[in-house]
Amino acid sequence: MLGIYLDNVRKVSPLIHNITNYVTVNDVANALLACGGSPIMADEPDDAEEITALCSGLNINIGTLNSRTIDAMFRAGRKAQDLGHTLLLDPVGAGASTLRTRTAISLMKALKFDVIRGNASEIKTLVLGSGTTHGVDADKADSVNGSNLAFMVKFVKDFSRSSGAVIALTGAIDLVADSERCYVIRNGRAEMGRITGTGCQLSGLMTAFVAANPDNKLEAAAASVCAMGLAGEVGYSHLQPHEGNSTYRNRIIDAICNMTGEILDEGAKYEVL
Amino acid sequence: MLGIYLDNVRKVSPLIHNITNYVTVNDVANALLACGGSPIMADEPDDAEEITALCSGLNINIGTLNSRTIDAMFRAGRKAQDLGHTLLLDPVGAGASTLRTRTAISLMKALKFDVIRGNASEIKTLVLGSGTTHGVDADKADSVNGSNLAFMVKFVKDFSRSSGAVIALTGAIDLVADSERCYVIRNGRAEMGRITGTGCQLSGLMTAFVAANPDNKLEAAAASVCAMGLAGEVGYSHLQPHEGNSTYRNRIIDAICNMTGEILDEGAKYEVL
Amino acid sequence: MLGIYLDNVRKVSPLIHNITNYVTVNDVANALLACGGSPIMADEPDDAEEITALCSGLNINIGTLNSRTIDAMFRAGRKAQDLGHTLLLDPVGAGASTLRTRTAISLMKALKFDVIRGNASEIKTLVLGSGTTHGVDADKADSVNGSNLAFMVKFVKDFSRSSGAVIALTGAIDLVADSERCYVIRNGRAEMGRITGTGCQLSGLMTAFVAANPDNKLEAAAASVCAMGLAGEVGYSHLQPHEGNSTYRNRIIDAICNMTGEILDEGAKYEVL
Repeated sequence: MLGIYLDNVRKVSPLIHNITNYVTVNDVANALLACGGSPIMADEPDDAEEITALCSGLNINIGTLNSRTIDAMFRAGRKAQDLGHTLLLDPVGAGASTLRTRTAISLMKALKFDVIRGNASEIKTLVLGSGTTHGVDADKADSVNGSNLAFMVKFVKDFSRSSGAVIALTGAIDLVADSERCYVIRNGRAEMGRITGTGCQLSGLMTAFVAANPDNKLEAAAASVCAMGLAGEVGYSHLQPHEGNSTYRNRIIDAICNMTGEILDEGAKYEVL
Repeated sequence: MLGIYLDNVRKVSPLIHNITNYVTVNDVANALLACGGSPIMADEPDDAEEITALCSGLNINIGTLNSRTIDAMFRAGRKAQDLGHTLLLDPVGAGASTLRTRTAISLMKALKFDVIRGNASEIKTLVLGSGTTHGVDADKADSVNGSNLAFMVKFVKDFSRSSGAVIALTGAIDLVADSERCYVIRNGRAEMGRITGTGCQLSGLMTAFVAANPDNKLEAAAASVCAMGLAGEVGYSHLQPHEGNSTYRNRIIDAICNMTGEILDEGAKYEVL
Repeated sequence: MLGIYLDNVRKVSPLIHNITNYVTVNDVANALLACGGSPIMADEPDDAEEITALCSGLNINIGTLNSRTIDAMFRAGRKAQDLGHTLLLDPVGAGASTLRTRTAISLMKALKFDVIRGNASEIKTLVLGSGTTHGVDADKADSVNGSNLAFMVKFVKDFSRSSGAVIALTGAIDLVADSERCYVIRNGRAEMGRITGTGCQLSGLMTAFVAANPDNKLEAAAASVCAMGLAGEVGYSHLQPHEGNSTYRNRIIDAICNMTGEILDEGAKYEVL
């Protein structure tokens, strides 16, 4: 039962430092507030260390990285690690450019992340050290489906073992694994892919869930994935025929805002392999 | 009666230059358009001076400051001051980091602001020269309430006297004061705190209100606080049970868009102490 | 019949690289997803060349330009041009500051744009080499109306001839021209001017439409203008009395999301001069 991990976020109200892209940052902030967390953003290196020290989690998203923010990622990351904060990496576009691939891999070497969340192509890039991503969406060839499920479950467990992080590989089917167990999650809707930033929002949520449940990282990360997917289902049910992806964006965050642990327990669809 | 100050914004349609954070900038722009103002953003030092020269007000918000934008704040600030434009400071996170505290205080030394708007912890930091803010939200210990109201009213009046600026200390109860009079405002709803950027939006509105009413700065600033709070009440009244903070954000800006001076006069809840 | 050009966007799903301002970037991304395109943002010079190489179109918008992003615009622009990608320039605020005017004109000299889209004041600035824009909105004196229509049609055709680009001059009446033909488009509503970023969104859409229809650039650009204007009409029809510019923003993107080629054919209002 994963609802307790959401309830804990609302109890603890973790302050989460986000060094994230400017495309979806507003939605990340509102999604964090919706789940009961509290967001703060700071990406000037001279500011990021002190700000992260006030928080309990750091969400590093390389979506619109630049030389200044990369510096902030490393400095805030080291400080957060020294203080025992929750550390999450969202390697947006790893595999799509040398700078993104190199930055994501260098961050993994320099820091011990609690969770790494990305799409199939991004996660493969981190494992292989180079990638084939065409943009910020996963290649179809990389996606998890019925026929490669067992292979992919082993793949994320192995990566969790080698990296020491919980791995969240999200897509039509989501996998959240440590080295021993993998949550296979089937919440969500395909239409979420037509909204910018649902992955970024999930990374924000996941940081808050893990920060509020430090003794149950795997379950907390899985709970955040179920919560986001379920919000996608609930939000969709409230859409009118003339509404589209922009209103859907609002409806999903609204659904997170109104979600309780009980609702999450009833709606979460997963098995553990 | 404060409605006239909103009516004047719609008549004058002041062009407002915003050097503000990238988290809430889109909402600041739409809130400014909703109240009848016109927004422009420019934060490259080489660009900011010329852009601010076209405007009648400058809104400086240090929410995601960096070395480049800090330079732009000072250069645009000096130019705006030389031209007699309305100058507002929103010291987001002052007290939370050395860079934010130092930047806010240096801006206050270098520039003569017409209005300073922040939460209780940020304003206290500016008065004391150092602070204890834990993030970008006010500490509960600092908030204005029934038992410390008289003390806090004197506090903001004193700060107005020493700084020469109208002081807007916003929270559950809002105080807007010059050295002689303090508007104590009780519009708004607690749920507004679960939306990112309502404070930033208010700073944008306030700059427009003061720029359109340069001979009545205190009243114009108070009117903008009442307008934002009233929009929070009106917007909330249109929320459906399944809606949450993301839709609420839209409803508040919508309510500003549909607000008239008459509606503001009817809904504003304040006393002057 | 312009609907086919929208249908092609949905078939091809072009990946569009946007170097654009941080004010409206989220709406640009969602508008691109709504029309069937796929957005990616990257503005670090070291990243922008590789990212643009993955795409089929590059949308350069100078709305919050800075020295780093200007460098990225030139480098990504040259790479995109070498690869034969669709190149669009949105000269936001050209005429309002020296940096904006100079950057827009330098970009035009360095790169061969397929389309240039701006308001009347911005386009005039590019033609004259200097400008009189007061902010990011067009001066009223510059706008296209019944009495200067023939003059303005000749003006944009001449500019298309001299620049080699399709010219889209948008406002109450929109003109989209090559050197021979000019689409005069009367879709849209005045209320769209109270939403930040409808022009930026249109530039994103236009890049996708032209990228998906490389052999019919003029028609594709005109189709995107009709689509945006029609979405403004459809979105407005779904507004409730208490709703304003923030909800209207969502409704417009929703209407793009639900638009088909057939709907566009029925709703497009234009003549070719």
